[in-house]
Amino acid sequence: MSQQVARVSLRDIQRPVTAELDRVVDELRRIIAADFPIITEANEHLLRMKGKLFRPTLLLLSHQAAGGRDPRAVTLAAVVELIHLATLVHDDSVDHSVLRRGMPTINTLFSHQIAVIMGDYLYSRAIIELVQLDDPEALRVLARVTNEMTVGEMRQLEAHDKLAYGEEQYDQLIRAKTASLLAGACEVGALEADTAHRRALARFGMYLGMAFQITDDLLDYTQPEAVTGKPSGLDLKEHKMTLPLIAALGRMTPTERPRVQELMDTPDPSEETVAEVIALVERSGGLDYARQRALELAQQADAALEVLPSSPARDALRDSIAYAVERRS
Amino acid sequence: MSQQVARVSLRDIQRPVTAELDRVVDELRRIIAADFPIITEANEHLLRMKGKLFRPTLLLLSHQAAGGRDPRAVTLAAVVELIHLATLVHDDSVDHSVLRRGMPTINTLFSHQIAVIMGDYLYSRAIIELVQLDDPEALRVLARVTNEMTVGEMRQLEAHDKLAYGEEQYDQLIRAKTASLLAGACEVGALEADTAHRRALARFGMYLGMAFQITDDLLDYTQPEAVTGKPSGLDLKEHKMTLPLIAALGRMTPTERPRVQELMDTPDPSEETVAEVIALVERSGGLDYARQRALELAQQADAALEVLPSSPARDALRDSIAYAVERRS
Repeated sequence: MSQQVARVSLRDIQRPVTAELDRVVDELRRIIAADFPIITEANEHLLRMKGKLFRPTLLLLSHQAAGGRDPRAVTLAAVVELIHLATLVHDDSVDHSVLRRGMPTINTLFSHQIAVIMGDYLYSRAIIELVQLDDPEALRVLARVTNEMTVGEMRQLEAHDKLAYGEEQYDQLIRAKTASLLAGACEVGALEADTAHRRALARFGMYLGMAFQITDDLLDYTQPEAVTGKPSGLDLKEHKMTLPLIAALGRMTPTERPRVQELMDTPDPSEETVAEVIALVERSGGLDYARQRALELAQQADAALEVLPSSPARDALRDSIAYAVERRS
Repeated sequence: MSQQVARVSLRDIQRPVTAELDRVVDELRRIIAADFPIITEANEHLLRMKGKLFRPTLLLLSHQAAGGRDPRAVTLAAVVELIHLATLVHDDSVDHSVLRRGMPTINTLFSHQIAVIMGDYLYSRAIIELVQLDDPEALRVLARVTNEMTVGEMRQLEAHDKLAYGEEQYDQLIRAKTASLLAGACEVGALEADTAHRRALARFGMYLGMAFQITDDLLDYTQPEAVTGKPSGLDLKEHKMTLPLIAALGRMTPTERPRVQELMDTPDPSEETVAEVIALVERSGGLDYARQRALELAQQADAALEVLPSSPARDALRDSIAYAVERRS
């Protein structure tokens, strides 16, 4: 793989599993169905805000790349998306987020109470479905992953001494919060495969997930917002320590660091303060460092795929790396 | 069983399974252990506020009464308590409760965010443990029960037209919210038993759970508070429709019903208004009706035990009925 990865669309990546992905949505609808009004309404809203099905795509591609032909893979893909949805509903509630994928969150549209209960509803439905599939290994992997994600969420709340938050802690955080579910999706797709292939795909998913999250964190510093034309700097406003800032802090001068400390000490920092720290992070090489790290992880993800036989599915997994690190949203 | 059940202590009921209950607490500690500071702190707090282990008691007694001798019963009992704990943590967060068992709730002591994540942590730990026990049937029962509990929580939030909320809806609510886990605990204790015994114990747990919840709802109308010497009427303050009020409404005069409607329309009703409605509920026979209903359910629970062979464990289960409907807190 070259240093500069090519731009690819998610649609291209999904091509080898298009038919299965259509069925994933039907499965999702079936699994979360309820005969209780509030839940039905919330379900319909969630199905409308349905994302790009990146995790089901990874699961189905891994399944195909590892030579699998199990029709249960579609249901497993729906369950993985469902676990992701349950996590989003609780995350938005915990973060008091108003929008998700351009639509109001469950906590905004209904209430905070309903969001908490709804997340529990979705997650317990996922477990019921996994039990019915009679696949203890899939259940084992996904139960572990869900638990890891909760620990990741806790890590996010941590960090009393913001400026001392280091890259190692950040790596642990993004592994737990994001990469674990992507690794789980890839692994669950390949449960019937050779141990070597299964492990390779789990490793691929972990590196991919870390690169994916670093890219997400970079976008917060670089992606111009529609209205202002400037990066949102939302993480900075919420005092979240992510890789661009962590890397930049190590390179700042003794006069620059206090500017960051000041922002972290201000409950509701102004647009000017945020813009100033964003500029400081860029000038100190924080963005370049994070980009470089994402590329390294992308290369590790790519290398993990080497052990698999050549196939359209493996090629699509390869392309998903480019998608993860080159996307603009 | 006589109409008037005798007063029994929980300690008496627990006698046949005392040794196992000690180990339940150790198992609980082992299962929730974490190497992350916030979680460890929250765990310690939860272990200190540990309740009376009523659900583990029921599971272990059911196990013994059905002739079981599986050492995994202790772990299953700990898992059932853990699911109960996870539910309490989310309930307290959703209800903004300040105290639980005389101690600050997780949302009060830490934060609302941590309570949501902590509930998810505990529940996913319970699932991991169930997967490790390699007992798909226990997992099936408890996953279903957990999902029912979330639907019960949703039912609790429902009821736009308070005064039209009927006894049938109330029954569905308490089955889902409370009785399902007690039934699940009894059933999981007897998974290896004859189908007839297993079903009988599940039925026993369901009736017991409903009687338990009606008693709880009665206490809100009758139990004098330490400070005021008057019943708290907390459910009324929060506009919760429970059996005493539902039954009383059907017996009120056309001049009395508007008093209740008024309270339901007032966001923060005064102590006087609450006391007045409590008196009205008593005068209209709402308390007597609810007591009678709890006794009927107690008798159904008792009858469900008939099919089991006589044993100290069966006697203790019988006594647990008296405990459930006669307790003062």
